[in-house]
Amino acid sequence: MIVISGPSGSGKDSVLRSLRARGLPLHFVVTVNTRSPRPDEKDGVDYVFVSNARFDEMKANGELLEDAKVYNDFKGVPKEQVQEAMASGKDVLLRLDVQGAATIREVVPDAILIFLTISSEQKLLERLKSRKTESEADLALRLETAREEFKRVDEFDYVVVNREDRLDDAVDKIVAIIGAEHQRVHPRKVEL
Amino acid sequence: MIVISGPSGSGKDSVLRSLRARGLPLHFVVTVNTRSPRPDEKDGVDYVFVSNARFDEMKANGELLEDAKVYNDFKGVPKEQVQEAMASGKDVLLRLDVQGAATIREVVPDAILIFLTISSEQKLLERLKSRKTESEADLALRLETAREEFKRVDEFDYVVVNREDRLDDAVDKIVAIIGAEHQRVHPRKVEL
Repeated sequence: MIVISGPSGSGKDSVLRSLRARGLPLHFVVTVNTRSPRPDEKDGVDYVFVSNARFDEMKANGELLEDAKVYNDFKGVPKEQVQEAMASGKDVLLRLDVQGAATIREVVPDAILIFLTISSEQKLLERLKSRKTESEADLALRLETAREEFKRVDEFDYVVVNREDRLDDAVDKIVAIIGAEHQRVHPRKVEL
Repeated sequence: MIVISGPSGSGKDSVLRSLRARGLPLHFVVTVNTRSPRPDEKDGVDYVFVSNARFDEMKANGELLEDAKVYNDFKGVPKEQVQEAMASGKDVLLRLDVQGAATIREVVPDAILIFLTISSEQKLLERLKSRKTESEADLALRLETAREEFKRVDEFDYVVVNREDRLDDAVDKIVAIIGAEHQRVHPRKVEL
């Protein structure tokens, strides 16, 4: 189980899209999310977009491996989807915010946690501003959260810097990490 | 510090030659050896070939990071060469027999130990026999040693199977391991 995490604006979505294009035997877990889709997002592909009521129901039924409030929305990892993917023999890849990654570490101690980051806070600011999908207040909250998240790199196994115009380098590094983990004499154990 | 080890006949020399051709920023440590060079081996490149007397002197002077008796010969890792390579900022790569790798683990606990192996003992036998540089008695000793060495994979960090006609795959895996180790949040520490 591989978790790709990092502050908002570190480029998780771009990295995952590029990683998907490599055609590796990976299952990309589609998490559930209560926020509204952005214009380029597809339901069931980027996230499973659900109502707050449905989310509460899933949580109450124990259908979520991990769940968290992110800004004013709720996200969660559907346990059954992860179990099915693992049963099929694939590596399972999760895209999670830093808070979610920390929770996964508790639930699945042997998960591989990769912290994706960019070279400076200034670049993060520019990237978040250019997104233009958030209100000023949302953006301020997101930036403050990102600042706090930057400090939590110590809780991760690997760090990958996603440099401007070097997306492929970041993806190469993630592919190398996954490859190396497969060569471990004492493999990590994931039990759900 | 990366140690590539494995039983005799597992293809360490071929893998290292191919790895060298990739032009990575690696220093390939040239170990000292008291045996006679094989026809294709060059002094100072494959090993530094030394007399037993010179070897004893180096050992007595503390010039060897690790030393071992292998079959009827002596091998050792020159400490100064390793220190100089590390000071230059390169990764240091050592080719060692299994006994030597185990000793390095004691001296440098954070060294990365890679166990190179082949798919079966039968293939190992064939490979060693085809070498035709050893007497029957030497071959028997080498085979017995290899059988014992196969059992010590547990002492290593990574295992890479060097399949017949798939040398590049094995080298790719070693490159991935080295790449992944560079992304660790908490890097290994090597102090000599």
